Amino acid sequence: MLNAKVIINILGLLSGINGLFMLLCIPVGLYYGDKSIISFVYSSVTCFVIAIVLMFFSRDHNKNLKKRDGYLIVSAGWAILALTGSLPFIISGSIPNYTDAFFETISGYTTTGATILTDIEILPYSILFWRSITHWIGGMGIIVLTIAILPLLGIGGMQLFVAESPGVSADKLHPRIKETAKRLWAIYVLLTVTETVLLYFGGMSWFDAVNHAMSTISTGGFSTKNASVAHYDSSFIQWVIIVFMFIAGVNFTMTYFALKGKFKKIRKNEELQFYAFLTVSVGLFVSLAVFVNNPTNFEQSLRDGFFQVVAILTTTGFVTADYTIWSHFVTVIFFWLMFMGASAGSTSGGVKIVRHIILLKNSVLELKKLIHPSAIIPVKLNGKSVNTEIVFNVLSFFLIYLIIFMTGAAFLASLGIDFETAIGASIGCLGNIGPGLGKVGPVYNYSFIPEVGKWFLSLLMLLGRLELFTVLILFTPFFWRKN
Amino acid sequence: MLNAKVIINILGLLSGINGLFMLLCIPVGLYYGDKSIISFVYSSVTCFVIAIVLMFFSRDHNKNLKKRDGYLIVSAGWAILALTGSLPFIISGSIPNYTDAFFETISGYTTTGATILTDIEILPYSILFWRSITHWIGGMGIIVLTIAILPLLGIGGMQLFVAESPGVSADKLHPRIKETAKRLWAIYVLLTVTETVLLYFGGMSWFDAVNHAMSTISTGGFSTKNASVAHYDSSFIQWVIIVFMFIAGVNFTMTYFALKGKFKKIRKNEELQFYAFLTVSVGLFVSLAVFVNNPTNFEQSLRDGFFQVVAILTTTGFVTADYTIWSHFVTVIFFWLMFMGASAGSTSGGVKIVRHIILLKNSVLELKKLIHPSAIIPVKLNGKSVNTEIVFNVLSFFLIYLIIFMTGAAFLASLGIDFETAIGASIGCLGNIGPGLGKVGPVYNYSFIPEVGKWFLSLLMLLGRLELFTVLILFTPFFWRKN
Repeated sequence: MLNAKVIINILGLLSGINGLFMLLCIPVGLYYGDKSIISFVYSSVTCFVIAIVLMFFSRDHNKNLKKRDGYLIVSAGWAILALTGSLPFIISGSIPNYTDAFFETISGYTTTGATILTDIEILPYSILFWRSITHWIGGMGIIVLTIAILPLLGIGGMQLFVAESPGVSADKLHPRIKETAKRLWAIYVLLTVTETVLLYFGGMSWFDAVNHAMSTISTGGFSTKNASVAHYDSSFIQWVIIVFMFIAGVNFTMTYFALKGKFKKIRKNEELQFYAFLTVSVGLFVSLAVFVNNPTNFEQSLRDGFFQVVAILTTTGFVTADYTIWSHFVTVIFFWLMFMGASAGSTSGGVKIVRHIILLKNSVLELKKLIHPSAIIPVKLNGKSVNTEIVFNVLSFFLIYLIIFMTGAAFLASLGIDFETAIGASIGCLGNIGPGLGKVGPVYNYSFIPEVGKWFLSLLMLLGRLELFTVLILFTPFFWRKN
Repeated sequence: MLNAKVIINILGLLSGINGLFMLLCIPVGLYYGDKSIISFVYSSVTCFVIAIVLMFFSRDHNKNLKKRDGYLIVSAGWAILALTGSLPFIISGSIPNYTDAFFETISGYTTTGATILTDIEILPYSILFWRSITHWIGGMGIIVLTIAILPLLGIGGMQLFVAESPGVSADKLHPRIKETAKRLWAIYVLLTVTETVLLYFGGMSWFDAVNHAMSTISTGGFSTKNASVAHYDSSFIQWVIIVFMFIAGVNFTMTYFALKGKFKKIRKNEELQFYAFLTVSVGLFVSLAVFVNNPTNFEQSLRDGFFQVVAILTTTGFVTADYTIWSHFVTVIFFWLMFMGASAGSTSGGVKIVRHIILLKNSVLELKKLIHPSAIIPVKLNGKSVNTEIVFNVLSFFLIYLIIFMTGAAFLASLGIDFETAIGASIGCLGNIGPGLGKVGPVYNYSFIPEVGKWFLSLLMLLGRLELFTVLILFTPFFWRKN
């Protein structure tokens, strides 16, 4: 039996939190003289009413959460954030069509950054601010989800790094969830503030600096400018964003250890090593390809190459250059990067590097086993053996990921969208990246996708963000069976 | 230690067999008055000399084969067939460039059917006949390989259906390999003869009928006509080929049981059920899409739709219509079909349906396990539990398949080939299909691919045909390590 009351209670809480964040937009609107302030008042009040009603009816809830409740809370939680979070866009008239408003909002909370807006700069400041806040809330949510909740639920190998988290042990996680969350959120806030200050000193207005910092640390990708980060013709600003996108793609637990000076714990982390190696090697490679193609300014080639590699690898999706026109080879490399993702335990989407490490190591072992069939050789990560069940989880995860990607592409193509665009949009949304290939490439947007396609892509964003299984399980009969 | 002598002995034997088949082209050349007869004499003699030398030096070989020897024999066997088999093309001057000749030959023996020829019809009859024979030899080789050798080597779940083979049991396979092979070859010959007769009665010349029958039963796809099967404006001929492509995609063991009247053994076979279901459902769907698009002749829409679905699903690759221009949706469906393949134990390439069944069932179980983590629920196939090791094998196989596909696409794109063509050529060769997408779509050919790309694609064909692991293992250090 589902513990309905506790679920309702948490949804009420989330609605309330959303309402509080909306209040933040009011001073911004006042300062810039927006006409949209009143829409934040209405939206915020609506959120509070929902919160009060839900929490009133579930006031005598029993805190005994079961796994099954956990799954429902995760999906329903993201859904209620997106539903209430879309109110300011609609009430203010900034995005009059409901499908578009929902798409934009879920793209925010899932830190995807895919947009249906063709002109971003005409929006009121308060609405732009709210748009970035949806990313920032989404990023916060993901940190708790991946570090504290998913490992408990046993999702696709997420158990792998739970033992590494500060103050967390796999067996008695619950009592310390709050403690862990607080520490990681402190880092999240610290990174956002630091980046804001740096961007301001680089020449951005305070407003743009805050918005881009929130988008970066959450690996979201919404910008306040139509041309995204290409708008800022400042190599300092672009390098700052590159560095902070990279940091946002590091497991927040590792960042925590680094700030505590515990470098010993970091040095052995294979995911971090591989992430750094991948960034540097692919970044250099693409930069060289860009330079060879157009040998004018080496620093700019390096910057453009690294910017786009890091933007796609971390699934942020900011844009300083159109990677689909550099060369066919580079396009395929980016297509490949879209299936990588950065570290587990970061705010990035995608498959995640730790899973790729497991998949690669297991492939090599499978070959070894052909020669020595009776030998039992476990996959090792960070010097420890990985349970076979977890390797199995990871393999199944990747497979289901690909099936969903292919289904997504086929569905979009059935709406008359061309092959390359269909493939690009499917992985761009499932991987929470934002830009894809073809007509949803870095210099385009999702406005032309038919309505049903936008709802489908919204589902893909949610599936990708919530590590597939948490959402998929809700569609199985055995989830709802009583026993 | 590798048993080098027995390996050399078998390679000599294969060279000799190739030489014998070349002799078959001489009467064909004489009948049609070809000038290429002499090239078959030279080629054949060369094959015999190689055979005699190799077999002489390994005459005192010890028949005790180990797994490791098995792996080397499989890859080296296909390689020596392709090397000696390319001689007639070169000596006759039909394909003067060696890279092209090798590509065409390996495309033949791997039953891929990708061609570099821009004008097929100007070739001498004897050369066309030889081209089809390479398919036919390759198909024969595959039957022995998949039913008798691969299960012993433990490749990617191929153990799954070994217990089903006539006169074969997994533990004592060796003594009955010859018996099994003979029975299955008898079916292979029977099917080829039957199709030849039917095609002749449908209006083909005897020559064309034999060539197309050899291409069909081996799921190869070489045609003697530039327009492939579209050349024959006969609905009878096209339906005959559809039916025989389908049969060639059935596990030959099932066909054996069917001919013996043992329908009970067939009825329960899940792979066959799923194969039939997939063919009919996707065939109907595509046919309707074709008809809706251009509602003139319903029979032709049905025929074109089914022809291309069966041609791609069985990895034959014959062409009656260009599936890449029907609609974006249909293109994506075909792209998807390229990853399917027909039954294991047939001559078709690709991933194979039985693996997809295992993958799908395992995915559902993974979701079930999230709710009931302690329950041990095995994947079942044909009513029996499948060993976890085998499920693991299958998952790893599919993953490595995708990695190779992506690497292939990236490599081709690095040569300046566009995204869609690179993707299409990679899967078209790895899946042993032949036609792909874009500029290697059904109405084009592989002639424009740069030389290094052709060698790379040749490797992909071999990898795909030999179920990846048998080839990959040769590139690992532990294969060559003494112990």
